[in-house]
Amino acid sequence: MARRGPLPVDPIAEAKRQWIAHGWADAAAGMSAVTSIVRAQQLMLARIDAALKPFGLSFARFEMLRLLAFTKEGRMPMASAIARLQVHPTSVTNTVDRLVRDGFAVREPHPEDGRAAMLVLTDAGRDLVERTTEALNEAVFESPGLDDDDTAELVRIIARLRKASGDFTDPRPLPDPL
Amino acid sequence: MARRGPLPVDPIAEAKRQWIAHGWADAAAGMSAVTSIVRAQQLMLARIDAALKPFGLSFARFEMLRLLAFTKEGRMPMASAIARLQVHPTSVTNTVDRLVRDGFAVREPHPEDGRAAMLVLTDAGRDLVERTTEALNEAVFESPGLDDDDTAELVRIIARLRKASGDFTDPRPLPDPL
Repeated sequence: MARRGPLPVDPIAEAKRQWIAHGWADAAAGMSAVTSIVRAQQLMLARIDAALKPFGLSFARFEMLRLLAFTKEGRMPMASAIARLQVHPTSVTNTVDRLVRDGFAVREPHPEDGRAAMLVLTDAGRDLVERTTEALNEAVFESPGLDDDDTAELVRIIARLRKASGDFTDPRPLPDPL
Repeated sequence: MARRGPLPVDPIAEAKRQWIAHGWADAAAGMSAVTSIVRAQQLMLARIDAALKPFGLSFARFEMLRLLAFTKEGRMPMASAIARLQVHPTSVTNTVDRLVRDGFAVREPHPEDGRAAMLVLTDAGRDLVERTTEALNEAVFESPGLDDDDTAELVRIIARLRKASGDFTDPRPLPDPL
């Protein structure tokens, strides 16, 4: 991001004002929300990329390593990884190619399905993902730039968006009964 | 996005559960918020790209054309556009190069500063941006996938994030007094 000091006005509020002035009042709130999401992602990704840079990892490669590291034996079918990360199969292939090339994961045949592939974390991959998780937690996730209430409410609102968009079907999890 | 039916569980809620189980409770809420923003942006950008595809425009090129079209004479200094769009100067250069190549904008010398450049909308650019704005309003902004309350609250929360990140300085605008 260009860091040349704050603007004197909120550019999204100004765009909303223009939208209404041009007769697009029905679309003004949605335009503000979509533009806000796009900007929030830029701000977060800039911080994530800065934290990951010393490790030579992209966020997509981090997410794949983290997902593998959460499994019991550091392995999962490629198809499950594609479904869980909710990314396009082509970008998963690129992500996996880089991880394999760099020695952080290996492809293995699926034990039951000859046409499918398993992805397996290497020791180097496990070491890397533990160190990068610690770095991301400290640099970004422990201080996301929002207070606790805003953080929780943002997650709830976007969960409704994700659910309405067909990402998942379950009801939002409730706390365990005491 | 891969559209292969919804997952049986919310993958971000599941990641949060894992984060807490691994002893990273301080970072779990922030991880959920950041990952939610990243996913929301993917969902929105997929809809935007689909709406813009018939026009051969990226969202970055649309935003630049829209910004120019909002000015009184369809022209503004490049430096102002870079500041307002809050993007990296390099990506603005790429965006502008494409717009100029395609005949939607032209570069002109700045009337007062010989080293600076103005960007000027062409008639073709103005025609294109009016048609794409209509298409985006109808396909995305009028139905962002959130109800009115969530849309407004999401904008407010991200405005606080943007302000805390140094995007702008003004107080949030109040409604005009009656």
